[in-house]
Amino acid sequence: MYRVYGDIRSGNFYKVKLLMHHLDTPHEWVKVDVLTGETKTPEHLARNPNGRIPVLELPTGQFLWESNAILNYLAKGTEYLPEDRWLHATVLQWQFFEQNSHEPFIAGARFVAKFLGLPDELRADFESKQEKGKRALEVMEQQLSRTDYLVGDALTIADISFYAYTHIADEGGFDLAGFPAIRRWIGRVSSHPRHLGMADAAAG
Amino acid sequence: MYRVYGDIRSGNFYKVKLLMHHLDTPHEWVKVDVLTGETKTPEHLARNPNGRIPVLELPTGQFLWESNAILNYLAKGTEYLPEDRWLHATVLQWQFFEQNSHEPFIAGARFVAKFLGLPDELRADFESKQEKGKRALEVMEQQLSRTDYLVGDALTIADISFYAYTHIADEGGFDLAGFPAIRRWIGRVSSHPRHLGMADAAAG
Repeated sequence: MYRVYGDIRSGNFYKVKLLMHHLDTPHEWVKVDVLTGETKTPEHLARNPNGRIPVLELPTGQFLWESNAILNYLAKGTEYLPEDRWLHATVLQWQFFEQNSHEPFIAGARFVAKFLGLPDELRADFESKQEKGKRALEVMEQQLSRTDYLVGDALTIADISFYAYTHIADEGGFDLAGFPAIRRWIGRVSSHPRHLGMADAAAG
Repeated sequence: MYRVYGDIRSGNFYKVKLLMHHLDTPHEWVKVDVLTGETKTPEHLARNPNGRIPVLELPTGQFLWESNAILNYLAKGTEYLPEDRWLHATVLQWQFFEQNSHEPFIAGARFVAKFLGLPDELRADFESKQEKGKRALEVMEQQLSRTDYLVGDALTIADISFYAYTHIADEGGFDLAGFPAIRRWIGRVSSHPRHLGMADAAAG
C-alpha cells in the first residue's frame, strides 16, 4: 500500500489526495505539520532532502517528492494522463508553469495572509505576489475561455494541479470575479462525480 | 523541421539547444531577445501567453512552452528519458524541483547580478536568492555524492535541466568550491562526447 506524507492545509498535498480519490487508490496518510517544523526534522529530510510535503512512499520503501511528479507517477496508464506524446507534453507544460508562475504567488500569498496573518514586513512581498499571481490567472483564463479543460477535452492531472490553489485563491487575496472562464472551470472540476473537496479530504 | 524561439543568454533556452545537439535534431533558431521586451510582443505572446522563452514550434505550427516540457517532448523514446515508470517520475521530480527551488534563485541571482548590474534596491532580494539557491545546491550535492547522475546511471534530461544554470552559478555569486560532487558532475556532463558548451551554442 502507498503511504503519503503531508498536511491537508497544503494545496500541493491536496492535489495528491484528490487524484487518489479519483483513482480510488488505497493509501495511508501520515500527517506532517507544515507549520511546526515537522517538514525539517531528520526523519522527514530522509524522505525528502528538500524538506517539503507531499512525499509518496511506495510499497518498496522508495520515496518520491514534488507534487506534480507524484501525480504523473500515479496517473500513468489512466485516463487522467494522456499517453499521446503531444498531449502529455502539454500536460507537463501547464504543470511546470504552475510550479514556476502560479503556485509561488497564488499559494505564497495565501500562506502570508492566512497562516502568517499578513505582517507589515511582508506587505510589499504580498503585493508583488498579487501582481504576479494575477498574471498567471490571466494565462489560465485565456486558455479556459477557449477550452473546457487545460489539456484535451477531459479532466487531466493538469487540471488537478491548478485546481488545488486556484479554487482557494481568495484566501490569498485574489478576486476571481474578473475571471469567468476560471470560475466555470472550477464548477466543472468540482462537479466531477469522483471529486473530493478539500474539507472532505481533511476528514480522512 | 522544428523551430525554437529563444536567447542563448538564457539557461532555459540553452537546455533545449543542448539536448537538440545531443539528439542531432535539425531545427531553425529564431532569436528573441529577453532584455529588450521581445518576449512581450503580441507576436511572441501568441506563441507563449506567459511571455517567456524558450518556445518550440512543431512542423504542424503547434507551440510548446516551458523548457522542461520541451525536453520531455524531444527526449521521448530516446536514452535521455527512461521509459520506466519509476525512473521517469524521478526525472520529473528533479525537474519540478529545478523549476521551483533552483532556477528561481540560481538563475534569478545571475539575472540581477549579470544583466541588471546588482542595483542597491535589489540587494536584499539578491541576498535572499543566495540563501535559497545554496539550499538547492545542497540538495543536489547530497544526491550527486551518492550517484554519478541525478537519475539512474547515465545522463538524462534531469541532468541537462540542472546543468544549464548550475555550471554558470558563479555568475550569480554562488561559489561551487564547497560542492565537490557538483563540480565532478559538471565535469562528467561537459565531457560527454555529444556535449555543446553555452558559448559554442551561441555561435549557431
